[in-house]
Amino acid sequence: MLVLGIDPGTYSMGIGAVEYGGDDYTLTLSEALAPPRKAEIAERLRWLHGRLDQIVRDLKPDFVAIETPFVSRNVKAAMAVGQAQAAAMIAAASNGVPVASYAPSEVKKAVTDYGGASKAQVQEMVQSLLGLDEPLEPPDRADALAVAICHISSSQMTEIEMWE
Amino acid sequence: MLVLGIDPGTYSMGIGAVEYGGDDYTLTLSEALAPPRKAEIAERLRWLHGRLDQIVRDLKPDFVAIETPFVSRNVKAAMAVGQAQAAAMIAAASNGVPVASYAPSEVKKAVTDYGGASKAQVQEMVQSLLGLDEPLEPPDRADALAVAICHISSSQMTEIEMWE
Repeated sequence: MLVLGIDPGTYSMGIGAVEYGGDDYTLTLSEALAPPRKAEIAERLRWLHGRLDQIVRDLKPDFVAIETPFVSRNVKAAMAVGQAQAAAMIAAASNGVPVASYAPSEVKKAVTDYGGASKAQVQEMVQSLLGLDEPLEPPDRADALAVAICHISSSQMTEIEMWE
Repeated sequence: MLVLGIDPGTYSMGIGAVEYGGDDYTLTLSEALAPPRKAEIAERLRWLHGRLDQIVRDLKPDFVAIETPFVSRNVKAAMAVGQAQAAAMIAAASNGVPVASYAPSEVKKAVTDYGGASKAQVQEMVQSLLGLDEPLEPPDRADALAVAICHISSSQMTEIEMWE
């Protein structure tokens, strides 16, 4: 199973693809997409959508897993998250790839077994699960891979539940 | 000047195009785009983006004007607005059409001369400005036309200011 994970942002969008072969995770792709910083929002979204569309087309993942970050009551931040998510969702859906969304606590729980884990703990665990020598920079890259691992892990759980 | 106005929503998206010839407004297009209600969000956004892309391509507006509705502290509603806006922004920007955003108070002020006008007052004024016999249903259609009129009106103001 190949899953493309996405940490949505309109200035930096972490993307990471993880292949799961049955007992181990393999890193397939890891990037932070950064549209021209001074471009207006519509142009940044066009840029992100174009890159994501090309990546989904080339990679042909089985799923796209998108994080829904916690934004408290910050309405402006929530709109920006929605905008970035939409660029990814449109790229996935127009290439026929199903999309799943996960809350930060679900991602943390799946990767570290603890829903209240720190960002640093998540990053360490991602590095360890994928057997990487160096920490991933910027951290959006690790976050995107964590969402992909979260999706794989919850799919496995569902399968196990179905077998029981 | 031809402006495509958009009242963003992921279940119903009002769109309306207004041509301004120098002293009067003409209705060119008015629709409410409604993706399949039971489809998941990614599929609804793909559907909306596809329609909007086709409409922008056919219509070739000079501007796309998008409302940023007031969502108070409702983070979930704000994310949905952001998602719907992104579908429109990507369609506009990928066809080279500039995008402007307006707050509800700006739209109300431009159309009725009063930033605190009711929805009904805005709808009546849109109907009157465009010389329509019947009120527009659903109201998202009138809202979209109001945003287009707002953009035209603020462009005119900027031009007058520049001439002075």
